[in-house]
Parts: sequence; structure tokens; C-alpha cells
Amino acid sequence: MNFASDNVSPLCPEILSALEHEAYGNAPAYGADETSRQLDAAFSELFDREVAVVPVATGTAANCISLSALVSPFGGIVCHHEAHINEDESTGVAFFTGGAKLMPVDGPAAKLEADNLDAFLASRVDRGVHSVAPECVAITQATELGTVYTADEVAAIGAICKKRDLRLFMDGARFANAVAHLGCHPADITWKAGVDAISFGATKNGAQAVDAIVLFDTSLRGRVEQARKRSGHLYSKHRYLASQLLAYVKDDLWLRNARHANGAARTLCDMLVSHGATLAHAVEGNELFVRLAPELAQRMRDAGALFHPWPSLGADIYRFVTAWNTDIAQISELNDRITRN
Amino acid sequence: MNFASDNVSPLCPEILSALEHEAYGNAPAYGADETSRQLDAAFSELFDREVAVVPVATGTAANCISLSALVSPFGGIVCHHEAHINEDESTGVAFFTGGAKLMPVDGPAAKLEADNLDAFLASRVDRGVHSVAPECVAITQATELGTVYTADEVAAIGAICKKRDLRLFMDGARFANAVAHLGCHPADITWKAGVDAISFGATKNGAQAVDAIVLFDTSLRGRVEQARKRSGHLYSKHRYLASQLLAYVKDDLWLRNARHANGAARTLCDMLVSHGATLAHAVEGNELFVRLAPELAQRMRDAGALFHPWPSLGADIYRFVTAWNTDIAQISELNDRITRN
Amino acid sequence: MNFASDNVSPLCPEILSALEHEAYGNAPAYGADETSRQLDAAFSELFDREVAVVPVATGTAANCISLSALVSPFGGIVCHHEAHINEDESTGVAFFTGGAKLMPVDGPAAKLEADNLDAFLASRVDRGVHSVAPECVAITQATELGTVYTADEVAAIGAICKKRDLRLFMDGARFANAVAHLGCHPADITWKAGVDAISFGATKNGAQAVDAIVLFDTSLRGRVEQARKRSGHLYSKHRYLASQLLAYVKDDLWLRNARHANGAARTLCDMLVSHGATLAHAVEGNELFVRLAPELAQRMRDAGALFHPWPSLGADIYRFVTAWNTDIAQISELNDRITRN
Amino acid sequence: MNFASDNVSPLCPEILSALEHEAYGNAPAYGADETSRQLDAAFSELFDREVAVVPVATGTAANCISLSALVSPFGGIVCHHEAHINEDESTGVAFFTGGAKLMPVDGPAAKLEADNLDAFLASRVDRGVHSVAPECVAITQATELGTVYTADEVAAIGAICKKRDLRLFMDGARFANAVAHLGCHPADITWKAGVDAISFGATKNGAQAVDAIVLFDTSLRGRVEQARKRSGHLYSKHRYLASQLLAYVKDDLWLRNARHANGAARTLCDMLVSHGATLAHAVEGNELFVRLAPELAQRMRDAGALFHPWPSLGADIYRFVTAWNTDIAQISELNDRITRN
Repeated sequence: MNFASDNVSPLCPEILSALEHEAYGNAPAYGADETSRQLDAAFSELFDREVAVVPVATGTAANCISLSALVSPFGGIVCHHEAHINEDESTGVAFFTGGAKLMPVDGPAAKLEADNLDAFLASRVDRGVHSVAPECVAITQATELGTVYTADEVAAIGAICKKRDLRLFMDGARFANAVAHLGCHPADITWKAGVDAISFGATKNGAQAVDAIVLFDTSLRGRVEQARKRSGHLYSKHRYLASQLLAYVKDDLWLRNARHANGAARTLCDMLVSHGATLAHAVEGNELFVRLAPELAQRMRDAGALFHPWPSLGADIYRFVTAWNTDIAQISELNDRITRN
Repeated sequence: MNFASDNVSPLCPEILSALEHEAYGNAPAYGADETSRQLDAAFSELFDREVAVVPVATGTAANCISLSALVSPFGGIVCHHEAHINEDESTGVAFFTGGAKLMPVDGPAAKLEADNLDAFLASRVDRGVHSVAPECVAITQATELGTVYTADEVAAIGAICKKRDLRLFMDGARFANAVAHLGCHPADITWKAGVDAISFGATKNGAQAVDAIVLFDTSLRGRVEQARKRSGHLYSKHRYLASQLLAYVKDDLWLRNARHANGAARTLCDMLVSHGATLAHAVEGNELFVRLAPELAQRMRDAGALFHPWPSLGADIYRFVTAWNTDIAQISELNDRITRN
Repeated sequence: MNFASDNVSPLCPEILSALEHEAYGNAPAYGADETSRQLDAAFSELFDREVAVVPVATGTAANCISLSALVSPFGGIVCHHEAHINEDESTGVAFFTGGAKLMPVDGPAAKLEADNLDAFLASRVDRGVHSVAPECVAITQATELGTVYTADEVAAIGAICKKRDLRLFMDGARFANAVAHLGCHPADITWKAGVDAISFGATKNGAQAVDAIVLFDTSLRGRVEQARKRSGHLYSKHRYLASQLLAYVKDDLWLRNARHANGAARTLCDMLVSHGATLAHAVEGNELFVRLAPELAQRMRDAGALFHPWPSLGADIYRFVTAWNTDIAQISELNDRITRN
Repeated sequence: MNFASDNVSPLCPEILSALEHEAYGNAPAYGADETSRQLDAAFSELFDREVAVVPVATGTAANCISLSALVSPFGGIVCHHEAHINEDESTGVAFFTGGAKLMPVDGPAAKLEADNLDAFLASRVDRGVHSVAPECVAITQATELGTVYTADEVAAIGAICKKRDLRLFMDGARFANAVAHLGCHPADITWKAGVDAISFGATKNGAQAVDAIVLFDTSLRGRVEQARKRSGHLYSKHRYLASQLLAYVKDDLWLRNARHANGAARTLCDMLVSHGATLAHAVEGNELFVRLAPELAQRMRDAGALFHPWPSLGADIYRFVTAWNTDIAQISELNDRITRN
């Protein structure tokens, strides 16, 4: 009953099969193999337009490498205070971009709001070379607090970026959970809404270790590939990244896994609420942030549940994360145990 | 019959089993799992002293992160002109170290010679803050040209480093091939010879994607782990790196794989020599650099062999690389084909 | 009647004389000359303890080079939102430090408050390599809004830094104005209060172009000198920096200039208040931030005064800056003109 | 009798006058003043085409900032082994460019030869993202060994750069000495020969501290100005850089100073040769590299001459540098003294 993170889950059977399939014969290195060469087509089909795909093994790499191609070393990246790039990636953004500055802003439930974003940008005084000019906006979908931008919300942000000549990047570590929640086409919340590049996460949702940098502006590919190589993120046995990704998008595995995780989150949510928990934020993906009375929190722990306090949201707020492999029966069992106690 | 690189080989069965073994239950992320926590002990036993192990997925990451902990942004890294860090890792060293400079020197068969190294270091004029002072020496074992430093040769370099207060780093992308060739204990060519840190390669020798940064100076661990995180090389599902490494060193798998590859290289070498090829360098690991008459090179290609020209060594020099999975029977078959032609 | 900035003032006669004095004979380059070699002693006397002095030509260089010696590339620098390093130095801090992150906090009148600082630091959740740990606090004396920390206020911040093992840096671009205001000994608000290093500004207060990095922790000298050289801030004709600094601290020139500027600011303040202006912040140094009715602002402009609106403080807030050469008679003249209008 | 460097000379009277002229009234900061605004026109006239001028205080800054606008963080800069950027600027190039790599090549008397350069470039094996691709060639005029490229020699290098789509940069720390030697128009050895940008040195030739980045590709101005600011090289009292430069190019001061220095070098050369010294390189600017018998070297020192050994050229090689203020009578006096001894 480990709800500490979706990172605690193992790879899923389909991904394992894909790796096993690449366990025999030789193949060219560094992405020249047949498996790797299918990536662009597979993702172009998925997104319904031509894209360039550059896979890496971690979300931090996907985010930071993408951003290094979107901003100059003198520029600013507007993001939410809660953004992973702001809170969880050490000084990675400055490292990869050569100095670009994060410009955190607030917004409810870890989401940027278009109007507030516009007001923030309008309020920046341009003092030429002295000040840092925003060059990019970065949003997370689903957010770090388990909420999801609607297609309209992304498009509103995209319109502001276009108006102000800014790039728009999406951290999609939990992109699948967002699409599963919205029931939309992936295009609706990405390039059709003005997104230039996305880190398309798979690791948290059933892969072993792969996130795809998906470039809707394909002219960025060369720069991204240079940055990937020199930061040590180009796999020699590249097919082991590619095969995970192909399996991940085949037959909607990514969405099936995400739907399961989202559903488990709702089930867990309902159960917790029935015991008196209250929601800190809407549950739209696979993360719950709930207020638990100390006594309930203790009963949960005694029943064997693993989960983290989330002090930045308040002293009695806890995070629960579900995953592709969360066992619904275990939630029932957990309910039984804390009811009995 | 792919001799283009050892990177073309797949992962080996034992590594696949290790991954499969981690395909079920949940486990803590970022290295707190039981598998990952066995690493230090396993490698401390392997090297017969306390070490700190920080696994990453690629050799470039292992090399550059290690060096970032060994030199300042103002320092120099003395290496051979042929070194992978100098020739094959883009501007990665400067990126990770914040500006440190590679100082390439020559030497036969891609090896630094202690006397020449000492003379080079002695000849540097120290002009204080204006000039770049060497802070580290980096050697590759086995070298990029398939040769191997003896324990005495490493120790001689180590003694110079100690005398001049320099760090000594070893790029061990093919460390297993070197140990298999020398028949020595791993300690003999590392910490006992003055090496501070090594990138202990597994990817080329049967793993899917993992190289271990092994720190003999364990005080470097904190800095290395910070550099790993911010460069995006900390795996969330860390156990998939750790499990590969544990399988790799268990029951001497790393040496068995390397011995096979080395043996295949010798077999291939003998076969090629019997057809008139001449060696550009001694064959001590799993790489051959041979001079082929154009007609023989063509016959090889016609017979289905894949291999690369190596123009930096001469117009008619070719590289052949064997691996853990090289089929000795195929070398016989290749011999038959080119003999028949 | 140029109140746009203290940077609009020329060098003062004593500084010019010092340069003229170095206009003849030859002298060793790069700081080995007799003039430069007097710096450490002069500043050690000024601060009443042994210090190391490393002069550079600009405040941005002094700040960023100092910080690069105080924090790691993975660390955070806590400063006020209004800090020059946060608002006016482009992405300089990240550039010089190799990625360190500014952590801006609020406080009245551009000052950090010890209690709030401690609360901010206490609230940071340490998530190991994922999060950025504060390593340094940077304060500005006098602040960007013309206010001044008392010795007790600096000491309270210094005590927090000591308790939490953080470095304390002071941006002293207008240090002279602060000391002139407080009437204290320079030591009282620097090393005795826990400051590790200061950029001791001279440019705004009568010099041509020189700010001194003054290190109370003299062990930082080597690192600072390396950073100075590779960033192009080591003057070959170093005596032209040194001679400015020696003249600047001789016979209290720095304090005399600052006292004049501070006095002019108070005179200007009184005059403006008599016309209905209200203060946005206390006038403690040589900067005024005042609220002017649109009609008064226009009359000032019509009378020939140059000054900037300061929109970040409010729509009708304006900044006036006085300098060592502000003509008190001109303030009277200005008063006459706007009175007549 | 200080021949240690041209950096030991003071500023010249005309430069001092220019500074004195800016010693009174106020003026806008950061380059908006009238003096600074004359720079582009003055240098456009000097070079007989539209240029953009960005002044900084040191040659290292001028070189490194220029290069940061000419190459990517992944690129290579081909230069001579003896180049100042390779030997005397610490790790400045990597710092400013974000990692670009110096690719030193050999050539007689510190000069790149077009044919060898072309052969070097042709021999580079392009291995895509793995290898570093040259993006720029940097030459020094006059060179670090006191020799001068003819206009044809620069043009031949420029043609190769054009053919191979590389940028061409010129380190002109002693550009005046080169032009004075050649008797050519400044355009002949710069933009007409394919140079994209030059650091136009003044410091060594009579200025206090200023080198001008002159951009023949004026589209680079924005990037250069951003890099200047964030590296702390934008003067607040910018007029003190501008006034030096305007005085320097007015009435051919720069050439008059350089002609004097070059003439003094020839006089000193003749004198030394008459005592048995032999030249290590042709004397074309204001630097001499001569072989002195130990006994002669000692007599020189006993006579009061200051000069440096130059061990990289040989054990008995010494460097003498003359400057705008070298006293010809002192060379006679020196001759008398060593003749008498």
C-alpha cells in the first residue's frame, strides 16, 4: 500500500516485453537502429502532426534540455512556484541553459492563470540589458498538485505567449494522466494550444526510465540533440529508450495505465473522504492532497499505508499518489482496516 | 557479423533477469530501495576497500560528473589526445566542470607514459591566474585503441600525480576488458595505484545502460550526487540501475563477459592476420585496429562484416570491436567466406 | 539638476589627481606595482582587521565574483526582492556561480528582517539533492530604496547566518552613504556583525570606476582572484584601480563625499515635502523615493530637474538620487522655480 | 628601462586629457551620454564601413565576450597554440561561451598559415554530436610573438573561413602595432579580409584601460551587449571608456603611439644584435624575442634593464617589449652601459 509516489511502481509488463524483445541480436548504436527510427512517425501520428522526438531517461533531463533550446542564457522562464523545475530539479535549469532565470508566479492549485500571467508579464519593467526578460512560459500538465489545465486554459496561456513572443513549454511528466482526465486529443492541449515543446513522461506511468522530448517546432532538434549528447543523455544502446516509448504509445497503453491510476485516485479519495478527510485540491489526475485529522493519519499508517506529509500546503496535509499498478482491492482492504481500528 | 562497436550488442541474459526481478512490487525511489542500498557493499567487496558508488546510465555522464568533483572551473585535465573525454563527448567536460580545460598529450597506442607526463607537467610555466594549472590526470583503461595499462604503468602515473598534487581519474568504460586481460585484482590498477575515482563501465559489456561512478575518495560522494541530480542523471526508479550493476558484478559476470569479448578479439585478430592484415596496435582488450589491403577490406564487407574505417590512424586502418555476445562460429564462417571469395 | 542617478556624476578631483599621479613612469602590471600593494594595508586599517582586497571596475563584477567564492553551483542565495543582484544584474549571479539560485524574500523598505529571514529559512523543506539549499544571505547597505541597516540589524542577520551555517555577503555599492548615515565604524556593520565579504563601492561616490571586493575571510582570496582573471576583470594597469581606491579612503574622502550626498538628499527631501511630496521610504542615504502629485512632477520637470518614475513602488512614485557633486544652491534654485511656476 | 611589457606603461597625455575633460558636469550613465554616442560613427569612419562598437576595459573581456557571440556552447575555436585566449586567459573562453573548446594548431612565429589551417579543418572527422565542430577561427594581430599577418595572409584565412562557413575573429590587442607596421588601411586586414569582429586594443598602447569590441557584423550587437552586462563589463560611467577610445583614434594617436613603439623595438633590436643577440622571430611590432648569451643577459640586467625570459621558446630566449613611451635615449644609454661593462 505504497502511495508515496508513482515512482515507486515497477515497469509494466508491456514495457518489460519491449525490452525483452530487444534482448537478442545486435543493432546500430546511438539511435540509428530500426526501433529508434520509428519514434518520429509514432509520435507524429499520436499528435496528428509532424514532430521530432528525442528520448532521454529522466524528467529533469527532458525538462532542462528542452528549455535550453527555448531560451537564451540571458532570459527568464515564467513558471508556477510549485513547478518541478523550480522546486525539484536543483539548479538544473540554470545549468542547462547557461544561466536563464526562473520567474515563479502564483496561482491556485499550482496552475498559472492566463489573466494573472498576462498581468505579471505586463508589470515587468524592461530595463534593457540590466533586467531579465521573460522568454518562455513553462506549465506542468498535470500539475504538481494533481490538477489539470483544460484545453481552453492552455490555449489562453498559449495566446498570451504568442502575443508577447514567448515560447511555451509543457512539463508533461504526468501528461498521460491529464489526457486521461480530459478525454481530449493530445493535440488539443499541446501544439494546437500553442505549445512549442513538451517533455512527454513515461517513467511515472509504467516505463522503466524514459521521457520523450517532443518538439512541435522541429527546427529545435539539432540544438536539442547537441545538448543531449554533451550532458551525457544520449544512450549508446538507444533502442532501449525507443522500445519503451513505442510500447508506451502502442494500443493506448499510456492512456490505459493513466486511466487506471486516475481511477484508483478517485477510489482512494472517496474512501478517505468517507472517513472525514477533506480535499486540499480537486483530484483530477493520480495525486491526492488531503487534510487528515492526526488520528486518521495515524490509523492509516498503522494500517500499512505509505504516504508523505506535504508541509508546504499546511501542517495536516498529506499527499497520496496512485499508479498504473495500484491495486483497487488494497484500497478496500485499507478501508476495512481503518474502519476496524 | 557486426564489429562496428560493442555498443551494438544487446543486454545479456543475466542483466535481463535482474530487470525482470524488479518488474513486480513497489520500492522506494531515488536509491532508497533495498537493491540500491547493496551497491556500496558489493563494490567495496569487489575493490577490497570502502568505496562510494553512484550509478548513472552513460559513460559520458560517469566521466563528466566524476571530473566535476575532481577539478575546479579554473583547472586543467591532462589526458591523451585520443581520450573519449577529448574526442567523443562534445564539450561535456567544460559543461560539467564549469570550464575546466582538457590538456591533451601524446603517447603510443593512446596511453600516457609516466615519463612523458612528468616532462609535460614540468614544462608547464605557471603564470598564476593567467594560465591554467593541471589539477587532474585522466587515463582510459582499456584505452580507446584497445591497449591496456599494466598495474605498474598506472602506479607510475599515480606516483607522479601524488608528487604533483594532482587527482587521478580513470575512464573505465572497458575496465572489465582490461582486468580480464591483465588477470589482476581490480584494486591493483585503481586505488592501490593512486586512482581517486573511476567510471566503471557496464553498458558496453552486457548491461542495458549503466556505468558506475566508483569513488575511492568517498568524501566526494556529496558533490557527485549533487552534480548527478542537477544534470538529470538521478533515476527515480533507481533500482533499475542498481540491479544491473549488482548482476554485473555477481559471480564475475563482468569478467566472464569481458574474457569472452577479449578472446573473440584475439580469434578475429588471428584470422585477419592469416589473411594478410597487420596490427596497428597490440590487441589487449576487445578492440582491433588493423591495416587491411583495400581488396581484403572489400572481401570482408562482401562477406557481411560490419566495421569502421579509422582515418585518424591512417587511410587503410580499420577498427573491429567484439563483445560479450560475439559468436566465435561466425568468425569461422567469415573466414570461410573470405577465403572462398 | 540631474537626479537620475549617482552614476551620472563625474569622478571627483581627488580621484582625478590620483590618476594623474600615475600618468608618468612605468610600473609593474597586474597588481605588482607599489600602489596596488598598499591596498591590503589601507583597507585593513580602515576595517581594523586583516582583510584581502581585490579591486574590480564595476559593482556587478564585485558582487558576482564575491558570490562565486561564497556559494557552490548547487546553492541558494537569499536576498531581498529589490536587491541589485536580483533585479539589475541580468543573469550574472547564475553565470559567475555556475548556477546558484537567487531566493528573493520580502521586507519593508528593501531590508531583510532577521525574524522573517529566520522564518523563511526554517520553512525551507530540505529535500536533499532535489531542492536548493540556501548557502548565503546577501544584503545591500545602503539598500536599493535608500534605507540603511543599523549595526544591530546586520548583527541579527549575521547571527542567523552563523546559526544556520550560511555565508553573509554585503553589497556595498553605497556603503559609504550607510556609514555616513550611521556614524559608525565600518567594522561595526561588517565583520563584527558577521559579514564574510563586501563589495565596497566607490564608483557611485566619486570614483571613475572601481569597486573593491573586501574579504574578511581572507582564505577566499585565491578563488576570488581566479574568478576575477577568467572573467576579464583583472586590469593589466592595475594601479589605475588601486590609486582610485587609495585616494578614496584617504583622509575620509569616501565619507566626506557620502556625507555631502546624504545632506543634499535631506535638503532636497525637505524642499519636496514643503511642496506637498510625501516619502515612500525614510531618507537615510542619498536616495529619495517620494510620491509626487502629477502637477508637481510636471513642474519639477519644467524646472529642469531630471529624475525617474519608480513604477514598482507605485504609479506616482519617483526616485531622486544625489551625489558627491550635487549643488545645494541648485536645489534652492529648483525650489524657486517650482515656487514661481 | 622597463621592457617587461607594454602594460607597464602609463596612460598617455592625450588619454589623460580626455579623462580630465569628463571630470566635470553630469552625464547619462551606461552609454547614453554624448561622448559614448559618438563611438559608432568614429569607428565606422576609421574602418570605412558601418560598425558597432562595444567598449570594455580589458582584452580578456573583449576577446571572450566577442567569441561568446560567434560560437555556440558546442563549438570549437581554432587558434594558434600561442594565442592569448589559449595561454593567458585562464578558462575564460569556456566560461563566456558556455563550454566552447579551443582547438590549438601550430604555425611559424605564432601565425596560422592558411594552407595548414585548411588541412587541419579538412582532417577533422565529423562525428556529429559526439565531436566538436569548429565554428570560428581566431587570429591575433600582431601576434603574441611580435609578428604581423599581411593583408593577403588574413584574406587567405578569411577565404577558408568563408568556404567552410566559419566565423573569423581577430584579437587586436596590438592591432595598432600591426597597422603601423603594414602601413595599410585598417579595413584591409579586417572586414575586407573576412573578419567578423575584432577586439581593438588600446590599453597596451597608451590608454588607461579600454579595448573596443568592433563588430563588422552589426547584428551581433544585442548579444554582445547582453553578455557584457551580465559579466559585469558594462561601465555605469561609460563615458570614461568612450572618451579614451575617441581620443585614441583622434588625429591618428593610436598609430602615432604604435609607430613610436615599433620604432623603439627596431632600435632596441639593432642595439641588441650589435652585441651578438640573434632574433628568434622577425621584429614586426613592438615585441622582440631574442637569443642572448647568458653573459649578455646578465650585463643587460646589471645595466638596469627589465625583461622576461621566454622559456617556451627556448632556454636562452628573452622577450623585450617597447611601448608608446619608450625613451630612445634610454636605449642609447643602455647600449653605453653594456658596452662599458
